[in-house]
Amino acid sequence: MRVADLTEEQLLGRIVPLLPAGSATLVGPGDDAAVVSAADGRFVVTTDVLVEDRHFRRAWSTGEDVGARAAVQNLADVAAMGAVPTSLVVTLAVPGDLAVSWVEGLARGLALACAPWDVGVVGGDLSGGPVVVVGVTAHGDLEGRAPVLRSGARPGDVLAHAGVLGASAAGLALLSADLVGPGDEAAIRAYLRPGSPLAGGPAAARAGAHAMLDVSDGLLRDAGRMAAASGVRLDVRSDALEGDVRGVADAAARAGVDPLDWVLGGGEDHGLLAAFPQGAALPAPFRAIGTVHAADDESARVTVDGAPPHVRAGWDHFAG
Amino acid sequence: MRVADLTEEQLLGRIVPLLPAGSATLVGPGDDAAVVSAADGRFVVTTDVLVEDRHFRRAWSTGEDVGARAAVQNLADVAAMGAVPTSLVVTLAVPGDLAVSWVEGLARGLALACAPWDVGVVGGDLSGGPVVVVGVTAHGDLEGRAPVLRSGARPGDVLAHAGVLGASAAGLALLSADLVGPGDEAAIRAYLRPGSPLAGGPAAARAGAHAMLDVSDGLLRDAGRMAAASGVRLDVRSDALEGDVRGVADAAARAGVDPLDWVLGGGEDHGLLAAFPQGAALPAPFRAIGTVHAADDESARVTVDGAPPHVRAGWDHFAG
Repeated sequence: MRVADLTEEQLLGRIVPLLPAGSATLVGPGDDAAVVSAADGRFVVTTDVLVEDRHFRRAWSTGEDVGARAAVQNLADVAAMGAVPTSLVVTLAVPGDLAVSWVEGLARGLALACAPWDVGVVGGDLSGGPVVVVGVTAHGDLEGRAPVLRSGARPGDVLAHAGVLGASAAGLALLSADLVGPGDEAAIRAYLRPGSPLAGGPAAARAGAHAMLDVSDGLLRDAGRMAAASGVRLDVRSDALEGDVRGVADAAARAGVDPLDWVLGGGEDHGLLAAFPQGAALPAPFRAIGTVHAADDESARVTVDGAPPHVRAGWDHFAG
Repeated sequence: MRVADLTEEQLLGRIVPLLPAGSATLVGPGDDAAVVSAADGRFVVTTDVLVEDRHFRRAWSTGEDVGARAAVQNLADVAAMGAVPTSLVVTLAVPGDLAVSWVEGLARGLALACAPWDVGVVGGDLSGGPVVVVGVTAHGDLEGRAPVLRSGARPGDVLAHAGVLGASAAGLALLSADLVGPGDEAAIRAYLRPGSPLAGGPAAARAGAHAMLDVSDGLLRDAGRMAAASGVRLDVRSDALEGDVRGVADAAARAGVDPLDWVLGGGEDHGLLAAFPQGAALPAPFRAIGTVHAADDESARVTVDGAPPHVRAGWDHFAG
């Protein structure tokens, strides 16, 4: 059955029951707007759009993959402020010849990503369109804490990372070059359906993190953003990344690239990068990967083992 | 200059300064997420997507038109809950050959629609895509009041409407049939850049409205939704709509349709329909257009002058 075989109301009737209600939801879908609890008198909000053939291909990704990924990358932005996610709203444009089961899969993917946090999908809008376009807006609760901005890193802080590095880039490269072999499941999954150490966000805030951001465009590029916003230099220790390098070394050898390029430059892993005060106990799953220094030179915001890095620093989704 | 001539960062550098900050904004664009005040411990949230060639045509609508319309239709949904709007986030997919000035116009249109309410555009996401797709999520503050749902209409209530009826349908019909003549400015504007009596939403809530919704899919269809949710019958008095009928009569004559069809069935006007307790003073600009009755028959949720209506009852955007 295709989307064009149903009215909007019929399609909604199939999707809405698949979506989670959420414990912060006071008025859910079905009225002009939803009402969500914001216990501490503020809410965190972020939005992202995924466009078919730009951010995903239907030949590679199931609806469930796309739904889970769209939710996770927004939930990761909420977590990167130190907040606990509470609710999503979703817009979806779909071609008429899309299978209804694909859209149902998308709803299940959203639900899967929301389940661990009891996040509700509280509203949405459906439209026709030439390709699939999924827009997600996520909200979160700071639980009374100050938001952890990217601008708070201070010289002397410990630079720490939670999550994987390079795995999504490896998965994309393997799929693109048709090099997928046995043993590549983790990399493929990291690209198609990234996880994110969401609990690390609020945990870092509770542990007193001075600065934090979601690593979506590659470690060096996002570290550069934290460094620029904070007016500091971040130095990454390559020996702290050896596990990540090993994790993608085999795929990198087959693709003919330096695995460190993926680890330092690859995007879409949705880990968290944070600066903690020296001596702070790092909450799981953060591990120290470097240190924060006074900015001595605008041109070297981020260094690796004290020297400017020699890799391509991330992606520009927009330029392609 | 085309969008593809700029990086995402350069394009954002042109758009972000055009966007309003908003008095409820605690942390604006530039971090992983924004932080918005929610003084009463809850927030209202709604989302809508506009897809080129489905919801607008670039041949008819400027970027400013589309930006203003995308904002207004979401702000109207917030107002229809009885809330005061506080903030928007926006996703935008654009083809590479789109003029940068069109995107700047869209930002100005968002700003124009937000200005009367000091609403901030607190975040967003940009992507390439085959057509323009604009997603807006709007938030609002209930100021301590209960949300006004569509399910609260009671027999004996006065049915009231704020805003215009049929003007947007007239504008669309005139544009579609290439019939635009002198004197059609109001109808064309109603279609390209609808206004909405936003202040009426919170005013209705303060006046004790039992039920309310945004009229986006036509009076009869949206009245039917209120009737079904409330378990009542709504009777509309045609004499109360004479002004609306006169307003589109000339255009309807040229298009060869009954003007009452547009007034009862035309969508996209974004007025507010509300049920007030008998004897309540209707806040401006609401005017009584009918009465609420006990539901005597499932098949006649909405009547006009006591009888089932004989017009096409609204649109299905999704089916086309």
